[in-house]
Amino acid sequence: MARSVVIYSGGLDSTTLMYHLLAEGHEVKALSVNYGQRHRNREMAAAAAICGRLNIEHRMVNLTALLAVFDGNALTNTGVALPEGAYAPETIAQTTVPNRNMVMLSVGIAWAVALKFDAVAFGAHRGERTNYPDCQPPFADAMDRAARECNFEPIRVLAPFVNGVKADIVRRGAELGVPFDLTWSCYAGGEQHCGRCGTCIDRRTAFLQAHVADPTNYESDLPLGAF
Amino acid sequence: MARSVVIYSGGLDSTTLMYHLLAEGHEVKALSVNYGQRHRNREMAAAAAICGRLNIEHRMVNLTALLAVFDGNALTNTGVALPEGAYAPETIAQTTVPNRNMVMLSVGIAWAVALKFDAVAFGAHRGERTNYPDCQPPFADAMDRAARECNFEPIRVLAPFVNGVKADIVRRGAELGVPFDLTWSCYAGGEQHCGRCGTCIDRRTAFLQAHVADPTNYESDLPLGAF
Repeated sequence: MARSVVIYSGGLDSTTLMYHLLAEGHEVKALSVNYGQRHRNREMAAAAAICGRLNIEHRMVNLTALLAVFDGNALTNTGVALPEGAYAPETIAQTTVPNRNMVMLSVGIAWAVALKFDAVAFGAHRGERTNYPDCQPPFADAMDRAARECNFEPIRVLAPFVNGVKADIVRRGAELGVPFDLTWSCYAGGEQHCGRCGTCIDRRTAFLQAHVADPTNYESDLPLGAF
Repeated sequence: MARSVVIYSGGLDSTTLMYHLLAEGHEVKALSVNYGQRHRNREMAAAAAICGRLNIEHRMVNLTALLAVFDGNALTNTGVALPEGAYAPETIAQTTVPNRNMVMLSVGIAWAVALKFDAVAFGAHRGERTNYPDCQPPFADAMDRAARECNFEPIRVLAPFVNGVKADIVRRGAELGVPFDLTWSCYAGGEQHCGRCGTCIDRRTAFLQAHVADPTNYESDLPLGAF
């Protein structure tokens, strides 16, 4: 049986990933990283609730000291306005914490080594319009290679959704009975999903494309064509 | 001109690396990581003093939250005895912080992205007897590939000493006028270099092999053959 650490945000993608690995027979532990993102409280609450329901060990690591290094982006710096509307190259760059996925994977790999686990998994997938470099197949492949070399026993990096889009994840989640209503995607950090930020728009679009009912209460449900 | 972040411990290897990159014409900034290592105060003091002398910007990142992940090793867990004597496979495993180099490189790459720098450099080199997997050429190559894929602009990972041994670094440092007396290697965390831990033995051996005078005051200078 494979034993895997999941990089876990409590969002739609990583929750479906966790259910997917459990369905494939993996033993799973979940790692959430607080890197100062403005939506961290909602993310962490969602992650803890879902891990509790699944009886999965959940560790949260506080890496806010990295704020000294990561400056000038909208996710961690409240002096930068969060862009609204669908993602485009300029707004992607504004919401990218530099090297976020490598930092989270490297900490997950450290935990996997300490646990004598086999793998670390993350929910990277293709974007509809533009994409984060560190969610794409060449990055996932390179991290897999690095993880096989970093330790006396090789660790694998798994990214089973990396060739799909978010609608494929919604379809897989629906098959697996993922409690989508408990997951949290919005970057704005309000009480409800805002419905307007790039991540909310991606979430709404993915449910529509997958023909799966979206249980999310959005603060604003302006037609997607308005963005 | 290349612009590089150096992963900087204040030790012999990374200090020589910094002088080497400056001699090659790089603009350099230095990043030190406190991950709870027991020798951190001596390391950080050495690093700050040398950066001050060179007028290099030096940032220290506190990642002691990672202790929740890294358990059970002698460098960060004072409940585990620090092995004495030359390194051997069993003692290497006991003093390895899981995935330490990938974690430090990933944070260095994040800073390089934020700075719009080109590269991150680390002082990996071959061991005389045994070796840390994350100091070897396949790991350095894999990290270089991952760093080229993690961001909109590629970052390079440089490990110019990776094919040499510590004596080669001492020889290069002597050519460059590195102030070896200001560098700190010992893992024991005392007032002076202990002279007995694996890293002190490697340091003493390297000076002998390089035929360079060793300015270090060791607490114990038992002949190296005694270990």
